[in-house]
Amino acid sequence: MAAPSHTYTLPQPLPLDGGQAIEGAAIAYETYGELAADKSNAILVCHALTGDQYLASPHPVTGKPGWWERMVGPGKPIDTSRYHVICANVIGSCMGSTGPASAAPDGKPWAMRFPVITVRDMVRGLVALLDGLGIERLHAVVGGSMGGMQALSLAANFPERAARVLAIATTARHSAQNIAFHEVGRQAIMADPNWRDGDYYGHDTAPDAGLAVARMAAHITYLSEAGLTEKFGRRLQDRDAKSFGFDADFQVESYLRYQGSGFTRRFDANSYLYITRAMDYLDIAEEHGGKLADAFAGHAMGKGARFCLVSFDTDWLYPTSESRHVVHALNAAGAPVSFVELSAPFGHDSFLLDVPPLDRVVKGFLDG
Amino acid sequence: MAAPSHTYTLPQPLPLDGGQAIEGAAIAYETYGELAADKSNAILVCHALTGDQYLASPHPVTGKPGWWERMVGPGKPIDTSRYHVICANVIGSCMGSTGPASAAPDGKPWAMRFPVITVRDMVRGLVALLDGLGIERLHAVVGGSMGGMQALSLAANFPERAARVLAIATTARHSAQNIAFHEVGRQAIMADPNWRDGDYYGHDTAPDAGLAVARMAAHITYLSEAGLTEKFGRRLQDRDAKSFGFDADFQVESYLRYQGSGFTRRFDANSYLYITRAMDYLDIAEEHGGKLADAFAGHAMGKGARFCLVSFDTDWLYPTSESRHVVHALNAAGAPVSFVELSAPFGHDSFLLDVPPLDRVVKGFLDG
Repeated sequence: MAAPSHTYTLPQPLPLDGGQAIEGAAIAYETYGELAADKSNAILVCHALTGDQYLASPHPVTGKPGWWERMVGPGKPIDTSRYHVICANVIGSCMGSTGPASAAPDGKPWAMRFPVITVRDMVRGLVALLDGLGIERLHAVVGGSMGGMQALSLAANFPERAARVLAIATTARHSAQNIAFHEVGRQAIMADPNWRDGDYYGHDTAPDAGLAVARMAAHITYLSEAGLTEKFGRRLQDRDAKSFGFDADFQVESYLRYQGSGFTRRFDANSYLYITRAMDYLDIAEEHGGKLADAFAGHAMGKGARFCLVSFDTDWLYPTSESRHVVHALNAAGAPVSFVELSAPFGHDSFLLDVPPLDRVVKGFLDG
Repeated sequence: MAAPSHTYTLPQPLPLDGGQAIEGAAIAYETYGELAADKSNAILVCHALTGDQYLASPHPVTGKPGWWERMVGPGKPIDTSRYHVICANVIGSCMGSTGPASAAPDGKPWAMRFPVITVRDMVRGLVALLDGLGIERLHAVVGGSMGGMQALSLAANFPERAARVLAIATTARHSAQNIAFHEVGRQAIMADPNWRDGDYYGHDTAPDAGLAVARMAAHITYLSEAGLTEKFGRRLQDRDAKSFGFDADFQVESYLRYQGSGFTRRFDANSYLYITRAMDYLDIAEEHGGKLADAFAGHAMGKGARFCLVSFDTDWLYPTSESRHVVHALNAAGAPVSFVELSAPFGHDSFLLDVPPLDRVVKGFLDG
């Protein structure tokens, strides 16, 4: 794998919600566009569960374009001829930032000895990176899905660090159904004998089968029922009739298998366990005494950031009601917030796909 | 395991949609209530994917009450003091009817040599049982979920065999999303090394881990998001704080693990593969030239059965739109049909749970 363009090693131990701290944590990141002399034009984009820092440049493993190329670049909604865009791999992930596959102080991989982290811990890592870069206040923090959770967590815990908070297709807490789907994925990984209680590094085999099943289950939640029907329906895959066997007769089966197996080539199974756990632990209200409005008290009366929340009408993973819940809390806190539910057929994945109204909302909010 | 109360061995080979036939197929069944001398009071209840013939009597493996005790019995909506109720284990299952765990002609288990079956094949088996019992015309055929698919398939393919068709929380075709969830389950089973390409019978280990993951994924689809939130929310399981580990911290995780492991004690993994495949293959319109109304032509102008369709507003597995699709086809075919969407918080599983309006609909339709 090509080395990340930049890696920052935290000079201080990274304190964690679980009570431990990580010494010498590394944060791998990419940047796009020039940083202004007064460092006032930085935008931090936070990635989703299986995303990474390759926001607008090719992925070193798959060679595919960056995951938000359509949104980030010169003249694009997040305009890199105007803004300095930073995207960092979260703590716990596997693309250069410290995670379970990294070496622990004893030189061996952390594996399941890696401490359980939270979304707030990821954000602590990102803020430490901003400290290292000398960026006191972001022009904006932006993210979809788990990226949006980080944006909201940054706003709640470091209210002075961003002037704008753009949270897309996200939630301030994981629901029972969200946790349930993640638990299925974790059980699929842990049931794979190649998982070896997490100690598969250095072995010939990794828990690819379990990780692929986890990805398949999760992938269904990223798409809408109608979108799946439109894309695949009951169409058969490369055949005229059902095989009366267990091959992938249907296109949707073939697609899911491809999604599952492709994922294992670029992602570490233990990272999947840790990051899903972090998301399941997310409850920003609980972190702030139980009332979500209190989490955003630092933004009262225009003292802090302006917020923009975006949801999609076909997103059943983090439905509009979850965004509205955040908006109500921001209203109660007296923070300036705009909110829009966009219509798009792609379900949760709409934030990554071709939804021109999203481009306009993003550009309008960042440039305004 | 206690032997089934009754087993009928088909005198003729059972022809299958895949082109093969099963010789000497056995159908295990239970009955409740007395059959009238003229055999006019028989109701066939069809079971769901993981259901069985123990409709209103204890399950021989788990010792739990029958799966529809609340609906079937003396004085209950399906009144066994009035009707003779028959419930048979479907072909391909594992509670006494012929399936992949049964002995093939060579004396060894069929395993994956068992032919792939369809819902129509299951119904052919049930109709052969009715032939054996001398029941020409049922007072009614009743079923929820896959049981409803059988009821509709019986109506489409054997229109003279039932006077009433009651199909609850079901569909006439499996959608891309339905197929996708089933494919995740199959891949989880097949990824388990103990599956051994299906040849695990007689070994010490079965693919329990994979089957448990399959069940967990499916189970989420049986419940509504709101129902999960109400039942579990983010409540912790037997602890005051998060463990910062991978134990089942949340009640919903513990519940799902329990559902998964409990299921493996009573169900055969290969049966799960075959029955999910049969459901995914279901498309009653396709079986009848592509137009669903044509499938029900035998019921035109009151010549055949009366139909009743019931859906639940929180069922996202087989949503109301699927029932409405069937109702429109029945209307187009000129068949008498009533339809109701009931409000219930439990999602797809509502048909099994305490929903008093369902009781009234069932009783009204059967007694009317």
